[in-house]
Amino acid sequence: MPRTTTYRVRVEFGDCDPAGIVFFPNFSRWMDAASLAFFMQCGLPPWRELARTRGIVGTPLLEIHTRFVKAATYGEELVVATQVEEWRAKTFTQVHRVTRRAADGTEELICEGRETRAFVRRDAEDPDRLRAMPVPEDIRALCT
Amino acid sequence: MPRTTTYRVRVEFGDCDPAGIVFFPNFSRWMDAASLAFFMQCGLPPWRELARTRGIVGTPLLEIHTRFVKAATYGEELVVATQVEEWRAKTFTQVHRVTRRAADGTEELICEGRETRAFVRRDAEDPDRLRAMPVPEDIRALCT
Amino acid sequence: MPRTTTYRVRVEFGDCDPAGIVFFPNFSRWMDAASLAFFMQCGLPPWRELARTRGIVGTPLLEIHTRFVKAATYGEELVVATQVEEWRAKTFTQVHRVTRRAADGTEELICEGRETRAFVRRDAEDPDRLRAMPVPEDIRALCT
Amino acid sequence: MPRTTTYRVRVEFGDCDPAGIVFFPNFSRWMDAASLAFFMQCGLPPWRELARTRGIVGTPLLEIHTRFVKAATYGEELVVATQVEEWRAKTFTQVHRVTRRAADGTEELICEGRETRAFVRRDAEDPDRLRAMPVPEDIRALCT
Repeated sequence: MPRTTTYRVRVEFGDCDPAGIVFFPNFSRWMDAASLAFFMQCGLPPWRELARTRGIVGTPLLEIHTRFVKAATYGEELVVATQVEEWRAKTFTQVHRVTRRAADGTEELICEGRETRAFVRRDAEDPDRLRAMPVPEDIRALCT
Repeated sequence: MPRTTTYRVRVEFGDCDPAGIVFFPNFSRWMDAASLAFFMQCGLPPWRELARTRGIVGTPLLEIHTRFVKAATYGEELVVATQVEEWRAKTFTQVHRVTRRAADGTEELICEGRETRAFVRRDAEDPDRLRAMPVPEDIRALCT
Repeated sequence: MPRTTTYRVRVEFGDCDPAGIVFFPNFSRWMDAASLAFFMQCGLPPWRELARTRGIVGTPLLEIHTRFVKAATYGEELVVATQVEEWRAKTFTQVHRVTRRAADGTEELICEGRETRAFVRRDAEDPDRLRAMPVPEDIRALCT
Repeated sequence: MPRTTTYRVRVEFGDCDPAGIVFFPNFSRWMDAASLAFFMQCGLPPWRELARTRGIVGTPLLEIHTRFVKAATYGEELVVATQVEEWRAKTFTQVHRVTRRAADGTEELICEGRETRAFVRRDAEDPDRLRAMPVPEDIRALCT
C-alpha cells in the first residue's frame, strides 16, 4: 500500500455557508493543505527552502476531481487521508479521502478528491512564468 | 446552444498564494458564484426566498471536475461563462469556462469546471438534514 | 485573571499571499474561530443548538481592533489565547493574543485583536433580522 | 477633500455564514482589495512591478480598526469608498467606508475600517524579511 499521511481539520462556523454546511471550496483548501502536509511528513523541506535551493516553487494542480458524499458542519472534526496513487514522468495523482468518525464509531466518507499535480520551477529567463519539471527522483523515493 | 451567462472576476492580491498565482480553491469559489448568478440571471429568486416559499435551500455539489490550463494572477480580469450541459431527473451538470482576454485580443482558457449539482430542501422532520429533490420543472424551463 | 482558552493554528501555504506572509483577514478568521472555541470550552452548546433552544444565532462583531506586530508564514504553528476582558449589559469585549514559539523557546507576539461582540437572536416577526439581546446571565457565569 | 476611489463588491452566498450574513473577515478582504485598487487608480503600477523595479512588495497592515454597523447578505452590492486620511513619515492611515444603497435610494453604512499601513521592501541580506521604508514621495504625491 502506498505511504499514507493524515491531516486533521476542525470545521469552523466561518467555513460554513447559509445552508449551515461546509462551503465546498474549503474542502479544496483542506486537500491542498493535506497535499503539502503529505510532502512535509515524507521528509521534504518547505517550498520556501526548495525554492531557494532547487527552484521548486510548489506543485500546482493540473486537474481535480472531487465527489461529495455527505455534508459536514461546524463543530465536527474531519480527517484527510492522503496518498500518491500514481507517479508519471512529469505529473502525479494524489488522492485525499475526507472522513468523519460517526457517533457509533464507524468512519463516514464525506468526500474524496483526486488531484493531478506537477512540480514547477520559475522560468530562468522570465521568473514570473512557472514551468513543469520532471518529478525529482529523490522526492519520489521519499514519498513512496 | 444552451443558455449561457457570464460572471466577471477581478483577481485580487489576496486571492494569490506565495507562488504569485491564484490559490486554486478560489476558482471553485468563483464557479460557485457563477452557478448562482446563472440561476439569478435566468430569473430565479434568491435562495433565501426559495427557502421560505418552497423549502429549496440551494444546489450543493455532488461532484466537481476541474482542469487547470493556465495560471492567473492579481490585476487580471477573468470571465466565467456558465451553462447547464445536462439535466437529469434529480441532478444536473453545470459547466464553467474561465477565460482571460490576452494582450492580442484572443481569449485564453484558464480553467474549466464541470459540476454535478442537485436541488435540496430541508427534511420535514429533521431540519438539519438536507435532502435531494427532483429538479423543479419550472426552474428547468427558466434555465434552458 | 479571567478565564483563558487557547486555540492552535497551523499556517498553511494557501493562507499566505504573494509576499509570502499570512494574508491578514485570515487572522480575523482564526480569532473568530478562537472566539467560538472559547465559548465551547467554557461549556456552551453549539450555536446550532442555542439557535433551536433559545434563539441565539451567534455573537456577531460590533467592532474589531487589531495590531499586527510580526508577520507569520506557512509551516508555522500559532497559538491564539482568548479571554473576555469586559462584560457589559448588551456587549462584551474579547481579546485574542496570537503568539508563536520562537526558536529560542520564547513567545513572540504576532498580533493582538480586541473584539466587541453582542449576542443576537432572530427577530420574532422578521426572521431575517438579527437583534442584539442582553448578555445571558448563565452564559456569562460559565465564561468568567 | 482627499482623493477618494470606489470599489464595488457583490456579496456572494459563499461569503455568508450559517447566520446568513457576511462572515466578517470578508470585509477585511474587500478593504484590502479596495486599498490596492486605490493605489492602482491613483496611477501606481502593480506590486509585482514595484517589487522588481523598486523592491516594494506591498503595504502590509500595522493596525486595523473596524466598526460594524449593519449586516449585509448575499445578492447585495456594496460600495467601498477609500481614501488616505493621514500620511506620516513611515506609515499612513487609509479609511474604507462600506455602504449599500437602500431600497429608498439612501446610502446605508455597513461598516467602516481604518487601516494603518506601511510600505515594505525585502531586506537586502535576508529576502525572507520584510522591512518598513519611508513613504515614497512620488507615491504620496500621486495619491493625494
